[in-house]
Amino acid sequence: MAEFWLDEVRWTEEGLVPVIAQIDQSDRVVMFAWMNRESLKISAETGYAVYWSRSRQKLWRKGEESGHTQKIIDIQLDCDEDVILLKIEQQGGIACHTGRESCFYRSLVDDQWQEKEAVIKDPQSIYDKSK
Amino acid sequence: MAEFWLDEVRWTEEGLVPVIAQIDQSDRVVMFAWMNRESLKISAETGYAVYWSRSRQKLWRKGEESGHTQKIIDIQLDCDEDVILLKIEQQGGIACHTGRESCFYRSLVDDQWQEKEAVIKDPQSIYDKSK
Repeated sequence: MAEFWLDEVRWTEEGLVPVIAQIDQSDRVVMFAWMNRESLKISAETGYAVYWSRSRQKLWRKGEESGHTQKIIDIQLDCDEDVILLKIEQQGGIACHTGRESCFYRSLVDDQWQEKEAVIKDPQSIYDKSK
Repeated sequence: MAEFWLDEVRWTEEGLVPVIAQIDQSDRVVMFAWMNRESLKISAETGYAVYWSRSRQKLWRKGEESGHTQKIIDIQLDCDEDVILLKIEQQGGIACHTGRESCFYRSLVDDQWQEKEAVIKDPQSIYDKSK
């Protein structure tokens, strides 16, 4: 019974669902990733975002290396039950592995992708444990 | 040269890219869909969102039936070049085929998906041409 809500999600053939992460206070969209059933269940239970890494084929506890965890404020489901929207608080104010607040830091201007946002923190200092 | 920006997008094996649509003024996320190269090109050229319907396997000119077109304010690309974020103006204030502003109208509360948003307009009156 308690997991009936997980059954209502329409998972892809690979057992995944796309997830949009949006800062709760500012409504800025900062990330897009995927979850499988286990990661969505853990996310809901713990209150912190856990994704499924398709490249590494394993659970990806967001922030486990960087410390930039995402506290979940709200979990939303779309009309077709096949997309999740997370309202989050972003620890450290950095969601992107490039050291920016958001992964969406480029806009199309004059047929070119132009960067519009500086790096907040050098990724090397985020991911290098010796620092 | 003019289409070099399209080459920078990392399309899926099916030639698609996931797209998040967000209201420019309010920053509300209202929709998630897919584009292929042609639909992204047309979207950029015309300034109105054109998606790729995976179920119908054809171009989906958003609003062609409902009138609820999406005027594009900004096209953003993520750090991995495989997700698009559209900032839009939503004609009619309704992005969802259920007649709501947003497709994300349910939140997880006590292990249940709870609706939190009323229908603005009856879908029958949106899609029935005789009305």
